[in-house]
Amino acid sequence: AQIALERGYEAQREFDSRYRLLLATVTDAIMLVSLGDGRVTDLNDHAADLFEMARKDIVGTVLASHFENIRRSEMESKLVNAALTDGAEPIVLTTARGAARLRLVPSVFRVGGDRVVICRLTPNEQTAATSADGFA
Amino acid sequence: AQIALERGYEAQREFDSRYRLLLATVTDAIMLVSLGDGRVTDLNDHAADLFEMARKDIVGTVLASHFENIRRSEMESKLVNAALTDGAEPIVLTTARGAARLRLVPSVFRVGGDRVVICRLTPNEQTAATSADGFA
Repeated sequence: AQIALERGYEAQREFDSRYRLLLATVTDAIMLVSLGDGRVTDLNDHAADLFEMARKDIVGTVLASHFENIRRSEMESKLVNAALTDGAEPIVLTTARGAARLRLVPSVFRVGGDRVVICRLTPNEQTAATSADGFA
Repeated sequence: AQIALERGYEAQREFDSRYRLLLATVTDAIMLVSLGDGRVTDLNDHAADLFEMARKDIVGTVLASHFENIRRSEMESKLVNAALTDGAEPIVLTTARGAARLRLVPSVFRVGGDRVVICRLTPNEQTAATSADGFA
């Protein structure tokens, strides 16, 4: 059992290394969120840049708190609906800091007892063309 | 020990799920290669598309075999040099099938006893402008 245990840890470190390096390598802005408590469990620097914050200051915080006019429960239902609906409209939200319009593309997966959302974030480039708020 | 073992497996599945979903989510073309034997251990569909092959037909094959005029040993030294040199020129190679010019950006990391390379692949868009081979 001890040997199997050590093998288990080894394999775990292996998967963790691959995951970490992949997250750091990709050019996409990626964020992972636990649906259990609505908190950001992980993200890469590209994602942090979109919030004009350091990565370490976002990990562990509630995702909804980084956007204007959205509560945790509303964020959760938006993420789940978009992730589970084929051809759903992307979620477009405005960041609390910097007031940037971001587009979120979520997928939901189950990890142990929790549901985790992986989000790809992109600047919403249609903002200037479609906004009627006078900032263009 | 049995409980610790089960926790170990659980954590392992968790890391594996995150890795798998991340690989499937990103828009980058990503490939993992073992330096021990030069074989592709994993890749996503975006990467397979660049080789005009199915993902499953690339996993387990020798990376060098998918490019023109390069041997396994030469591929290994190119990957290691590029990964370990700051500001190195990207590796540009021509695919054996489709004769597409691809640019490889590798990082090397150590997993257990093996060294693994994670490669981001992009079409080499300067080909037409800089090639003097008459195909433009």
